[in-house]
Amino acid sequence: MNQAMQALRTLQKELYGYNYAIALIDTDEATVAPTEGTEGRGTALEILSAEVYRRIAGEELPRLLAEAEAGELTEQQAAEVRELRRANAQYSKVPAQEYTAAKRLFNQSRAAWFKAKAANDFSIFAPYLQQCVEVRRRWAGYFAPEKDVYDTWLDEYQPGLTMAECDRFFAALRSAIVPLLHRIQTEGQAPKADFLLGDWPLDKQQQLSDYVMQVMGLTREHCVLGEAEHPFTQQLYDEDVRITTHYHREDMTSSLYSVIHEGGHALYERGVSPRLRYTVLAEGNCIGIHESQSRLFENFVGRSRGFVQFLWPKLRELFPRQLEGVSGEEFYRAVNRVEPGLIRTEADEVCYALHVMVRYELEKLLLHGELEVKDLPAAWNRLYKEYLGVEVPDDARGVLQDIHWSQGDFGYFPGYALGTAYAAQMVQQMQHQFDFDSCCAAGDLQPICDYLTQHLWQYGKEKTADELIAANCGGSFDPMVFTRYLEEKYSEIYRL
Amino acid sequence: MNQAMQALRTLQKELYGYNYAIALIDTDEATVAPTEGTEGRGTALEILSAEVYRRIAGEELPRLLAEAEAGELTEQQAAEVRELRRANAQYSKVPAQEYTAAKRLFNQSRAAWFKAKAANDFSIFAPYLQQCVEVRRRWAGYFAPEKDVYDTWLDEYQPGLTMAECDRFFAALRSAIVPLLHRIQTEGQAPKADFLLGDWPLDKQQQLSDYVMQVMGLTREHCVLGEAEHPFTQQLYDEDVRITTHYHREDMTSSLYSVIHEGGHALYERGVSPRLRYTVLAEGNCIGIHESQSRLFENFVGRSRGFVQFLWPKLRELFPRQLEGVSGEEFYRAVNRVEPGLIRTEADEVCYALHVMVRYELEKLLLHGELEVKDLPAAWNRLYKEYLGVEVPDDARGVLQDIHWSQGDFGYFPGYALGTAYAAQMVQQMQHQFDFDSCCAAGDLQPICDYLTQHLWQYGKEKTADELIAANCGGSFDPMVFTRYLEEKYSEIYRL
Repeated sequence: MNQAMQALRTLQKELYGYNYAIALIDTDEATVAPTEGTEGRGTALEILSAEVYRRIAGEELPRLLAEAEAGELTEQQAAEVRELRRANAQYSKVPAQEYTAAKRLFNQSRAAWFKAKAANDFSIFAPYLQQCVEVRRRWAGYFAPEKDVYDTWLDEYQPGLTMAECDRFFAALRSAIVPLLHRIQTEGQAPKADFLLGDWPLDKQQQLSDYVMQVMGLTREHCVLGEAEHPFTQQLYDEDVRITTHYHREDMTSSLYSVIHEGGHALYERGVSPRLRYTVLAEGNCIGIHESQSRLFENFVGRSRGFVQFLWPKLRELFPRQLEGVSGEEFYRAVNRVEPGLIRTEADEVCYALHVMVRYELEKLLLHGELEVKDLPAAWNRLYKEYLGVEVPDDARGVLQDIHWSQGDFGYFPGYALGTAYAAQMVQQMQHQFDFDSCCAAGDLQPICDYLTQHLWQYGKEKTADELIAANCGGSFDPMVFTRYLEEKYSEIYRL
Repeated sequence: MNQAMQALRTLQKELYGYNYAIALIDTDEATVAPTEGTEGRGTALEILSAEVYRRIAGEELPRLLAEAEAGELTEQQAAEVRELRRANAQYSKVPAQEYTAAKRLFNQSRAAWFKAKAANDFSIFAPYLQQCVEVRRRWAGYFAPEKDVYDTWLDEYQPGLTMAECDRFFAALRSAIVPLLHRIQTEGQAPKADFLLGDWPLDKQQQLSDYVMQVMGLTREHCVLGEAEHPFTQQLYDEDVRITTHYHREDMTSSLYSVIHEGGHALYERGVSPRLRYTVLAEGNCIGIHESQSRLFENFVGRSRGFVQFLWPKLRELFPRQLEGVSGEEFYRAVNRVEPGLIRTEADEVCYALHVMVRYELEKLLLHGELEVKDLPAAWNRLYKEYLGVEVPDDARGVLQDIHWSQGDFGYFPGYALGTAYAAQMVQQMQHQFDFDSCCAAGDLQPICDYLTQHLWQYGKEKTADELIAANCGGSFDPMVFTRYLEEKYSEIYRL
């Protein structure tokens, strides 16, 4: 390894250390920390992020990158150089002071979001959201003044992704989903689902989480489950991944599918090759691909007839009273009922993309300066009425439901819908190779994990998003695989 | 403020940030983290501690300190300079590489201790403990080659403390405690205590923790309770303190008194003045004084007749079946029964110091190179027989019970006994000022907290340990106040 590359490895290991601390502080805040520690935490985040900034935006990095590139590089080394160069190209244009101040802002903003949601009061959050929008607009100007602001942030979460591509993608989805939803609502035989709303003791729900993690192969020695207002996954090391859920006493399926969703993220992070440790490549690829894994496990595995049938004896054992007189088939149909609702994370597979589209349209407007934060709740409610036909009763179940914008994550949401569509193609690929459905039905997810490790997980950020999508989606991305899947699955469930 | 002092404030704020991260990583490991994340965590700790080292051991600090001292300093600024100079004087003599490697070692060693204790297998821990002893012996040589190794580490945890003082202190305790214990065992009327061993549901114990924290004035917005193998307190900011407990299903009093003990530490940290924020003074003073606060609340408040009577209705409400037919007075006598046992943290007030003396003797031998790690379990068991008259059945309940040595904390233990004796004098002082006993009986701890804030807590490390001890212990330290308290309290309970 040439000397510059060695120096780059040292620098990446240092980045690992600071990012570990920052990630743990964020995770702690969302799961354990007392609510009034925001000030001290913000100071710590500023100081730690200054170290990150110094390394990715300083003058040493471009010099080392140029030196390293002058020598022979392995494929992995070339990928490290690529990722470091990308980060340097962007963040060296942001003033140091703004970089660290943003870390504190997002932390304060998250705390304000949390309080605003609990109090159902958008006004607590609005001034922080305003600042988050301003920071992201200003930074897009630093990164690429010639480019559309929103395109810059799409690219940040998935290199190469553009509004033009998103527009085409969402149009394709809409043209299939809207008529399907209409047929379901007008011609379909709605499954019985009233038994899902009930009283589901928390200790039994916790036991169900334990069981599901065990079935997924998420050993507690490497992956722990916490609780958070908004479930998420955080990787600290390939052998140390944290997932979270949120228990609702009245609806057990909410946490069940959160655990499977976050479990999908965690499996991906656990599958990143140890050879990438302490490099910038040692994490899951772009947001779309990351969400493809969570959505694959949540829906293509977790909501499949086979897997639900597999879970059924355990569900009956844990909830004998609540599930009395219900059959496994009825439960399968109930967790797949289609019902336009208020909450994205609780949405069924048919409606889910419509929730994403609302956010996509709104964050475009915010970043383009075409919608003011004060007008956001009304705009949100209007789009929910238009896209999903529902009246939003309050902001807690409306514009305040998701954490993303509070931490400056604009351009993240499309990845959920794209990831779901990637997942459909990945499942199709797997079905050509082995009996995917039987694995689900047997609760034997090892062949699925083995396949995904081999084709996707191990690479982390070593291969580009485009390379991984091409390799895993049968050559190229085709959202129609997903919409055909929806049509087939839901025609059967709804007897269309 | 002069320029050098301003630069020192910046440096201290940076230290705050790195130490925040390190403390959170340690806390996370002890409470939440999966067990197999040791490797990644060690790397992060190495990188973060390198930043701490660079600031406290680098060449810039002594230059700034000299410049700052050349100008006018406030009392607080002079204290900051004193503490920074002390740290610099010591750590500048330790090679950078050794400093960061020790951080990783203590982390690995703690993980090994945890596994060894769970497996009741000292051999898992022994090689790490060996290295911890070696590091501390070597560093004492760096710090002060002319000084006794163990004196150096006593001084580290409490500036000015020496073996000579500890020897005198423990001799004084022994001369009072040994005959008192003998009288209790031969002439005393032992309280009924069999009802304490039973089946205490964890959810009720958790509710008791909530109640006790509320009575102590530890608001959840500023102080959260976690669970750990070995309970501890960690301060991250004066408004963000973490305490932990360990629930034992068969004995509710273990967690009850852990919560009160750690709650005492937490109250102290919460009481440090906000004007000290982001300086090296913004934490509780030396170990002896810190433990004086935990032991004061645990014993002088928590095991007082008044406070136990105050708790009684809540205890009866939470545990009606377990406490059926028991009176509040019987419960008071039961939680004050004297019984030489195996576990320090469960020890009664009379025997407690004997547990500390075992550790004091052994760590002296270890640091003096007069006892090998391989011979430690046998030496432990021999001293437990000699000092407490008990046979140690296994290492989990013997030499592996405490976490301290696994993280290199040699010289810490005497602080528990010293702190208890300081607490006795502090309580005596309070009794001269207001009706301490009535506060305990009313569950109104505010006057106690107000007094301690005014006389002790607010100062953090601004005043020296000696100043605070003199001011709070009636002019000078006198262990006989503690032994007279024991004689009086236990003569009454045991009807001697």
